[in-house]
Amino acid sequence: MASKVTVRAAVASDVQVILEMIKELALYEKEPDKVLATQESLHDTLGFKEGSRRYAKTLLLYEDDKPAGMALYFNSYSTWRAKPGIYLEDLFVRPQFRGKGYGTTLLATLAKEVIDIDGARLEWSVLKWNEPSIKFYEGIGATNLGIEWQQMRVDGDALKNLARRGALGDGK
Amino acid sequence: MASKVTVRAAVASDVQVILEMIKELALYEKEPDKVLATQESLHDTLGFKEGSRRYAKTLLLYEDDKPAGMALYFNSYSTWRAKPGIYLEDLFVRPQFRGKGYGTTLLATLAKEVIDIDGARLEWSVLKWNEPSIKFYEGIGATNLGIEWQQMRVDGDALKNLARRGALGDGK
Repeated sequence: MASKVTVRAAVASDVQVILEMIKELALYEKEPDKVLATQESLHDTLGFKEGSRRYAKTLLLYEDDKPAGMALYFNSYSTWRAKPGIYLEDLFVRPQFRGKGYGTTLLATLAKEVIDIDGARLEWSVLKWNEPSIKFYEGIGATNLGIEWQQMRVDGDALKNLARRGALGDGK
Repeated sequence: MASKVTVRAAVASDVQVILEMIKELALYEKEPDKVLATQESLHDTLGFKEGSRRYAKTLLLYEDDKPAGMALYFNSYSTWRAKPGIYLEDLFVRPQFRGKGYGTTLLATLAKEVIDIDGARLEWSVLKWNEPSIKFYEGIGATNLGIEWQQMRVDGDALKNLARRGALGDGK
């Protein structure tokens, strides 16, 4: 019998499987020790806690009743277009479910959501050494912007130091 | 007399000056024709229209009563940290107001907002040829992630084609 494939938005009780997949993806990216997320911190930041903000959304893909993959994403914005977009933070299909088009299904579902919100683009980042993924992404129509842009980041102590350099704001 | 520098969140009546600065920045980036944003589309997507979503926030920096710069940004999310962050989409200081530390003031204000929301990071992209900006960013504590990651994007017809490749979702 053919498997039934479904995609749905995550709910609070999915936090455990989301965390499992975040850890499995970090292992694949060769950075298993970088995962500081816990069930509790995911619960608080993914909008499942009463009164808390939802900073990201998660789609879960099921093969029958088995969680096979996920897409975790948030809204981006293009000033040139004055339109929202979707930034895909994590895309993951469990190894035993690969080769069945589930990655494409998740990306297609996000592309449809971009169109539904009258958005301009679906974007994400990929590790440069991850040639199989880059080829897969180019195959589904993605443009590689890697040559033009560099990513900059401030975190940790550098973030605290920067905040001390004359932050201004309303009411100050 | 010393100038008074203030930073405040943009309101609906600021849409004109926001659009002017988006166009000035695009000119600096040598892409003046890429700006499709209008006052109306900014109004609709920056949360100034009753009932519409705010996809991005804008800080305006004033020198006395003169708009001198802006930062346009949205919330990002780190799964490894399970924490929000800020992605800075556009940072702009008008040429006649440069060299006064206003770029640092805007970045410091955003760094403080990241800390205020218990966030993990402040991030943005910079054009590779823009060496003066990269040097400036590194000087305020930013790490250049340009070597490890590539940006991928799907937009236009490719986005529509992808959405047709088996998008699934709730209720389908």
